[in-house]
Amino acid sequence: MRFRGSYVRRVALTALMAFLLSCASSQTPEAREPRGGAEVEVDPLPSWNDTGAKAKIVEFVRAVTDPEDPGFVEPGLRIATFDHDGTLWVEQPMYAEMAFALHRVRELSQVHPEWRTQEPFRAVLEGDKQALIAAGSPGLVEVIVASHTGMSATLFETIVAEWIRDARHPDLERPYTELVYQPQLELLRYLESKGFKTFIVSGGSVEFMRVFSEDVYGIPPERVVGSSIETRYEVQGGKPSLFRLQEIDFVNDKAGKPVGIHEHVGRQPILAFGNSDGDFEMLQWTTLGSGGSRMGLILHHDDAEREYAYDRASRIGTLDRALDAAAGSGWVVVSMKKDWNTVFPED
Amino acid sequence: MRFRGSYVRRVALTALMAFLLSCASSQTPEAREPRGGAEVEVDPLPSWNDTGAKAKIVEFVRAVTDPEDPGFVEPGLRIATFDHDGTLWVEQPMYAEMAFALHRVRELSQVHPEWRTQEPFRAVLEGDKQALIAAGSPGLVEVIVASHTGMSATLFETIVAEWIRDARHPDLERPYTELVYQPQLELLRYLESKGFKTFIVSGGSVEFMRVFSEDVYGIPPERVVGSSIETRYEVQGGKPSLFRLQEIDFVNDKAGKPVGIHEHVGRQPILAFGNSDGDFEMLQWTTLGSGGSRMGLILHHDDAEREYAYDRASRIGTLDRALDAAAGSGWVVVSMKKDWNTVFPED
Repeated sequence: MRFRGSYVRRVALTALMAFLLSCASSQTPEAREPRGGAEVEVDPLPSWNDTGAKAKIVEFVRAVTDPEDPGFVEPGLRIATFDHDGTLWVEQPMYAEMAFALHRVRELSQVHPEWRTQEPFRAVLEGDKQALIAAGSPGLVEVIVASHTGMSATLFETIVAEWIRDARHPDLERPYTELVYQPQLELLRYLESKGFKTFIVSGGSVEFMRVFSEDVYGIPPERVVGSSIETRYEVQGGKPSLFRLQEIDFVNDKAGKPVGIHEHVGRQPILAFGNSDGDFEMLQWTTLGSGGSRMGLILHHDDAEREYAYDRASRIGTLDRALDAAAGSGWVVVSMKKDWNTVFPED
Repeated sequence: MRFRGSYVRRVALTALMAFLLSCASSQTPEAREPRGGAEVEVDPLPSWNDTGAKAKIVEFVRAVTDPEDPGFVEPGLRIATFDHDGTLWVEQPMYAEMAFALHRVRELSQVHPEWRTQEPFRAVLEGDKQALIAAGSPGLVEVIVASHTGMSATLFETIVAEWIRDARHPDLERPYTELVYQPQLELLRYLESKGFKTFIVSGGSVEFMRVFSEDVYGIPPERVVGSSIETRYEVQGGKPSLFRLQEIDFVNDKAGKPVGIHEHVGRQPILAFGNSDGDFEMLQWTTLGSGGSRMGLILHHDDAEREYAYDRASRIGTLDRALDAAAGSGWVVVSMKKDWNTVFPED
């Protein structure tokens, strides 16, 4: 009888433990508010060194989730926005989306023989980097429009999906989707577990990122904000589609980022993470002039050994004005070299 | 010993039950897939009569959530879009937002004496409905721009919040936010409990609806898609703001709805609910030409006693083309009179 009672008890306790654990993992973030008292927790940010940056993040999250703290923020208002290129994945030596655009121009050149002599396409086809740089923004727009438009939204997604599956980073020789930053994946999950809603807010094309955002970052398409192409709704042969017109609709960069966030999210972020001057206004909009808990973070690429080292003088991901403003604005500059013990997943 | 063993067992089973129940209520929608076998459930749609419309909705939801069913849809793809005016709340005898715009014009006329003789403002100030109708779309745009722009996004939200708190529906003499449809609130919660992501997709202004969407519909701002005004990011005196320019950015109506859904949600809905020809293209985009489970619904206002009766000949919420197409497209026409036993909350 003792044995049997004890067996029942053991079975019941094991079942209880299993349910407790399954509850814990399936609870919505809102349900996981701290209840006060000391909690022993597994480190949610193991790829972050125990330096000031990590301590500031953890303290910020503690304050906004503690109903007793003056910095407490209601779960629905815990909006966190992350830039994409250079903040969530590698942006050097060329934005992945630009590599995609050049690849598309080379493919399409088979039906555009005139491109052999027409700038900026000639420069793309001949790999003439100097001419490409000289073509500047207007040249860039031409390449983007030529590579990103003139087909249905569905076909564009298929083309991006195939490219992202097959493409390899020129230096690191891995798929771009493996060159995401492990510490940022941990930070996204950590914030979400604390009731934050996370968003990607990028200068890149929204339709480009959405193809892989859920698989790679666990961020579904509706939480991706980006630049966009004008589209037109059409029905042909009883089949509706969205046709991608040869016109840029919105550029979600610099002062466009607060506009894009407002248009898409409808609430001001309380945390923003960027890495370049393109994120300056998003960091401002998030942290300046509003009361309550606010946090701005800048990833500083200072790790030539494991990734790249660049800032003020870089043509891609220039970090100059935002770096100057960081101290005065209370933005946390995260050093890839010092604050991260791991850069990529499965390093 | 028998008593004690049994006591432990009872305590353990009670605890298990409690945890099972707490798990069930705190689980994310995705975690609530049916496990097969018969389930006894409280009716999630008590304000819907047991007619064909309700049966079709329940069967659709059963199919898309049953992993064994050929119509199964992964939770992330269960996107449901709802029109706003006339689908989630009353739109007769005038859109609430238009009542807001006219109110604003009257208020602003104190600093715009020239409006006393300038159309369409003179017509607004004198309540000249015929002249207002004659002013048509260009007049409407003038009224919208005059009432919706020229201030910061934050100030606009405050103005809308005050108006929506104080305004009363001209016929039903209740706040607009009480004139939402109880059966639709139940449907939103039912779909969400089955892993659907719900969105409002309206021709109305996104910044207008977002002020009350979470309180009234349980739909947070980032899941509201609507028409928008051009905004510009500014910093003045160290304080950043978004200034609402005198220009309409996007009209999220008719063929704009699929474009708005694509831009904002990034995935095709599998269920769309509308009530007028303004929803025709959203219903098409949702149900035509794509494989898998799809459902289109149209609310037919045929209840002059409890709400209003109107369709083909109505100037507001015209339902003509979409009604003709319903049968051939498999769209379910929901009769307010026959299919709903309650219209408003706390009737």
